[in-house]
Amino acid sequence: PLPRSIGLKIGVINPGKLNAITDVPGVKVGHETIIKGDSIRTGVTAIIPQSGNIFQLKLAAAIFSGNGFGKLAGSTQVDELGNLETPIILTNTLGVAAAMEGLIEHTLSQPGNEAVQSVNALVGETNDSYLNDIRGRHVSRQNVLNAIDNAKEGQVEQGAVGAGTGTVCFGFKGGIGTSSRTLPQSLGGYTVGVLVQTNFGGVLQIDGVPVGEELGKFSFSDKLLNNVDGSCMMVVATDAPLDARNLERLAKRAFMGMAKTGGIASNGSGDYVIAFSTAAAIRIPHQPQTPVSTTGYLHNDFTSQVFMAAIEATEEAIINSLFSATTTRGRSSRLVEALPLDKVIPILKKYNRL
Amino acid sequence: PLPRSIGLKIGVINPGKLNAITDVPGVKVGHETIIKGDSIRTGVTAIIPQSGNIFQLKLAAAIFSGNGFGKLAGSTQVDELGNLETPIILTNTLGVAAAMEGLIEHTLSQPGNEAVQSVNALVGETNDSYLNDIRGRHVSRQNVLNAIDNAKEGQVEQGAVGAGTGTVCFGFKGGIGTSSRTLPQSLGGYTVGVLVQTNFGGVLQIDGVPVGEELGKFSFSDKLLNNVDGSCMMVVATDAPLDARNLERLAKRAFMGMAKTGGIASNGSGDYVIAFSTAAAIRIPHQPQTPVSTTGYLHNDFTSQVFMAAIEATEEAIINSLFSATTTRGRSSRLVEALPLDKVIPILKKYNRL
Amino acid sequence: PLPRSIGLKIGVINPGKLNAITDVPGVKVGHETIIKGDSIRTGVTAIIPQSGNIFQLKLAAAIFSGNGFGKLAGSTQVDELGNLETPIILTNTLGVAAAMEGLIEHTLSQPGNEAVQSVNALVGETNDSYLNDIRGRHVSRQNVLNAIDNAKEGQVEQGAVGAGTGTVCFGFKGGIGTSSRTLPQSLGGYTVGVLVQTNFGGVLQIDGVPVGEELGKFSFSDKLLNNVDGSCMMVVATDAPLDARNLERLAKRAFMGMAKTGGIASNGSGDYVIAFSTAAAIRIPHQPQTPVSTTGYLHNDFTSQVFMAAIEATEEAIINSLFSATTTRGRSSRLVEALPLDKVIPILKKYNRL
Amino acid sequence: PLPRSIGLKIGVINPGKLNAITDVPGVKVGHETIIKGDSIRTGVTAIIPQSGNIFQLKLAAAIFSGNGFGKLAGSTQVDELGNLETPIILTNTLGVAAAMEGLIEHTLSQPGNEAVQSVNALVGETNDSYLNDIRGRHVSRQNVLNAIDNAKEGQVEQGAVGAGTGTVCFGFKGGIGTSSRTLPQSLGGYTVGVLVQTNFGGVLQIDGVPVGEELGKFSFSDKLLNNVDGSCMMVVATDAPLDARNLERLAKRAFMGMAKTGGIASNGSGDYVIAFSTAAAIRIPHQPQTPVSTTGYLHNDFTSQVFMAAIEATEEAIINSLFSATTTRGRSSRLVEALPLDKVIPILKKYNRL
Repeated sequence: PLPRSIGLKIGVINPGKLNAITDVPGVKVGHETIIKGDSIRTGVTAIIPQSGNIFQLKLAAAIFSGNGFGKLAGSTQVDELGNLETPIILTNTLGVAAAMEGLIEHTLSQPGNEAVQSVNALVGETNDSYLNDIRGRHVSRQNVLNAIDNAKEGQVEQGAVGAGTGTVCFGFKGGIGTSSRTLPQSLGGYTVGVLVQTNFGGVLQIDGVPVGEELGKFSFSDKLLNNVDGSCMMVVATDAPLDARNLERLAKRAFMGMAKTGGIASNGSGDYVIAFSTAAAIRIPHQPQTPVSTTGYLHNDFTSQVFMAAIEATEEAIINSLFSATTTRGRSSRLVEALPLDKVIPILKKYNRL
Repeated sequence: PLPRSIGLKIGVINPGKLNAITDVPGVKVGHETIIKGDSIRTGVTAIIPQSGNIFQLKLAAAIFSGNGFGKLAGSTQVDELGNLETPIILTNTLGVAAAMEGLIEHTLSQPGNEAVQSVNALVGETNDSYLNDIRGRHVSRQNVLNAIDNAKEGQVEQGAVGAGTGTVCFGFKGGIGTSSRTLPQSLGGYTVGVLVQTNFGGVLQIDGVPVGEELGKFSFSDKLLNNVDGSCMMVVATDAPLDARNLERLAKRAFMGMAKTGGIASNGSGDYVIAFSTAAAIRIPHQPQTPVSTTGYLHNDFTSQVFMAAIEATEEAIINSLFSATTTRGRSSRLVEALPLDKVIPILKKYNRL
Repeated sequence: PLPRSIGLKIGVINPGKLNAITDVPGVKVGHETIIKGDSIRTGVTAIIPQSGNIFQLKLAAAIFSGNGFGKLAGSTQVDELGNLETPIILTNTLGVAAAMEGLIEHTLSQPGNEAVQSVNALVGETNDSYLNDIRGRHVSRQNVLNAIDNAKEGQVEQGAVGAGTGTVCFGFKGGIGTSSRTLPQSLGGYTVGVLVQTNFGGVLQIDGVPVGEELGKFSFSDKLLNNVDGSCMMVVATDAPLDARNLERLAKRAFMGMAKTGGIASNGSGDYVIAFSTAAAIRIPHQPQTPVSTTGYLHNDFTSQVFMAAIEATEEAIINSLFSATTTRGRSSRLVEALPLDKVIPILKKYNRL
Repeated sequence: PLPRSIGLKIGVINPGKLNAITDVPGVKVGHETIIKGDSIRTGVTAIIPQSGNIFQLKLAAAIFSGNGFGKLAGSTQVDELGNLETPIILTNTLGVAAAMEGLIEHTLSQPGNEAVQSVNALVGETNDSYLNDIRGRHVSRQNVLNAIDNAKEGQVEQGAVGAGTGTVCFGFKGGIGTSSRTLPQSLGGYTVGVLVQTNFGGVLQIDGVPVGEELGKFSFSDKLLNNVDGSCMMVVATDAPLDARNLERLAKRAFMGMAKTGGIASNGSGDYVIAFSTAAAIRIPHQPQTPVSTTGYLHNDFTSQVFMAAIEATEEAIINSLFSATTTRGRSSRLVEALPLDKVIPILKKYNRL
């Protein structure tokens, strides 16, 4: 069950209809889960920011690097130009090159892109090597194309699927999680949706409840240097017309949401946030008709509520990934257990959150 | 009473002896509180990183800008050179220039600095104009020199004192707060101390407990655009030998600690962290004897535990500021109440934290 | 004489009518030159981006730090919010606080700003201590207000005036310089104007001619560690509707222009560029009528020519400062000679540039 | 002939023995040139920072993004951790994924790396699509492994080879160029070596001489919006013991060297600098024996001369690439001519540089 279905309400803003990144109109998500034999536990998740040819009609975008021990591809061009021109692919650390190949293939082969000679493939990753034979490099270009093809609006499958197939979070099985917030009309009515790939450590808190401490399972809990490394990839979509500068600020708030779950952004963590706006009025043509285009951006003064929505949705998306992921056995017979709800629910009750 | 004295334990690492930034050996704190008439409620807080002439023997330092709606002075030189050469002064937004004057005066007049022609004054601020006649610019150079002179080791006065005299946090009286963490010897034995000047908004959580919601007092709670602007200045000291690059990473973790209290880094917030290392082996001479100096830095792999300490100490320092600050009446007869412990303690009990 | 008056043409784009930052409509410049006794040689230069109350109607702006050994005030807020709300003041290193006081006074006292409680004073500086008794702190708030009052459109006085009174550049007398470029209509017709305060070292090249080498006067020329430190403050104005992101890119091109004069951005140099756009369509109201405002920004694809204009105008502005500055005697009877045109012109002829 | 062989001396510091990046002891360069049929004109260049297993013994490193319209892989981890752990590969824009595959294969298969689960492949690129069928993606993982295998100390082949096979610079054939500077012992005796892949536009200046203007071939010279896009990848090696912070500053100076050749960092240019130090005392073990390691870094005050060396070596490396590259015919029968030395030498003489 998802946290909200058992009565846990994270934050003070209401989620969108699906409580998913796909509440932002036009956003699609697709998974390709790769499970083979005893030791291949990995996959690909594609986030399609909008339908149509997004290379020809780019979206305002920004990236925040919370802790850059990661292999995010495509970041400097997003920083410089303030836009994205491909779907966003999440996969494992050593699968980034294959994901780039897939995105390039996808882009070059789209009608209208026959003359395209340059593609900025945007790929995030986390390291699933605890459960997955990552050195075997089992993600292929075709897997990536499949994830893109699988993408659809509506409900998003969460947990040990796609790029979350082999990840570990707070010592439990992590994976893909998603959540959203829709602001009341008086605050603009915008929606913010977040999707995360969770693979990091710290001291787990669920809606403020010290679950990690109660379970005796947290970073440095044995007073020795544990391996707390891992990563969290976060993707934030919004229909608010934020320019790249304000999208970078929005991205930073997702990192705050991660902090609220007890993540510590350890040295080895690759914690990145990619944020984009789907607002039609600010789409960026690859070949503009005129040098100056008329656009409408949200003024700085109206961003705070959108920031708050991103914090909440990220926190809940991470918790959702933990509630959704199932116990997984992987390479070297390693077993990572799902968050033990039979123990967690009593803890949430003990602290009067349920 | 401080949270810890009533039984609240934030985090999993033990505080230092004083639970204050002054647990980092050699660090001193001094306040100058400026209260005059009905409408002057402001002040100055000085953090002295080490005794002696710190211009001549600088300290490795770094700054992280969580949200840069602020007037932090001295940041670009710290970014470029990786060191600090003056005490750190906190004051109000329109008092930054006076604070710079004080720091320059302090530095030029120190024995050994007779030939100094350039001083990078490091000054942070938050805007206390809700309670204080900030336009009157009541902070003087002398107030700053007094705060420096007042600085001492040992207990740190917290709450509505010094630079925290007129600040507001989560709708309650904010101010100065401090806390520390000392790692066990097996994790390096280092101490991290934090001092904050709290003046920001969001949805208050105390050790994970939704106090803001319970009190019905939080950002956007009336579904109208509240003024949630404000700021949080955070200063992190450590005796761990971190270079400027790792100090910047450490500074970023303090911002995560702020997130855990429910801060949202709203548009108008100036949320900055200044981090420095007091480790003797990495002090930086103004006039080096040799081009290459032998130093000893902590390897990246051993930073995670120091990061975790900074997150915890910042969270607790913010909460300490709220517990310490007293109800204050200021300009235009405005009243800002202290955190109502008579209501908060029952809430903490309701959520089984006490 | 200015370089162009003797036939030197730097770059391939034509200057504006005045070859000054004031070619950008609405930009004004004012100087306050402070010369007293034998050892006070300093001053203030004010750049007024537009008439009217710019706090209430801010301008898109950005800052690039080429080398951050400097005391630039106001940078983090410009970075975060993408705008400026005060005139830009240039002065000496230890005069920054006085300049902030002046800008705050100027802003608070303007009609319409009665409720303003926060001002982000934007102040740059270079260190004129070779000629000036900088430790005496002879710049006052009133000097700054005078410089603002003195500001006017039209011709800009260059050389050893205002903030350039006591500066040294490439071993010669530096000072204030300005230049502009106006793009042909086919490239947008925009104007880029630059004003510099030159106080740095390296190996002087004038329009590519190795003047520093010919004169035997350049950094490290005696194979000992010279003091090559110094700074260059650069201000770039344009009427092209660039958003903050593209203004930051524009600012970076000014740094390239500095490189073309032989500047090396030595360790001790504070080389910063402040860029702003005067385009009416993108002015930013302090109190917006609506959350989303209709604006028109220049598309990335049309920025290259504006970048090129900034490179050329900066290079020429620096050379103009050297041609304009006059021999100056200052503290400790130090003498800094003007660029010796009687020797430089033959060198320019030797290299066939005249 | 190379510029220096015909008497052109760029800068005031002497080159190293080979005037190549390989003057920095231990640095190797290898090319794989890929020419097939009428339209495949591309390749790979590998820079090996040091012999041995550099994953296990990393090098301090930093990256500066001059203009980030590019697909540089591996940048965020270098930014965060301050080190590099693989060779540096340069190739074409759509070959980055293949280069990553090659670097990962190279790293995983090295003795001692059997347990490695994460590799930060560092790959730069420029877009050679004017001459090369870039959409055909003709760079393979094996090409990359070959370039690494081909790497050797000593003379470096320059011009239309390796990653420079299909590039265009200032409208002429560009390619690979290299140069170095060795400081006199009185300035530290350090060597700085630079290797560039040139594929960009602007207004060509050779040692300050306006060659682009004289040839009537420069950006926007027809007063229409030309396609001036392109890129310049720059790699800077030094044996000076610079930490990551100072290496980033060093990298920025290479960008200044590019500016001196007339490059304008146009909107579409991907101008990046990767800098690393080979100093043995500051190598970074993947698995440190102790948390704190004794190291010796160069003090800030001694960096200026190293910066100056990087500026000069970059300027000369770019010019060397142009002098070395040969006329090349590529896809769609396009012809890019070599820099016409028969015209350029008279121009250099006209301006008295020869």
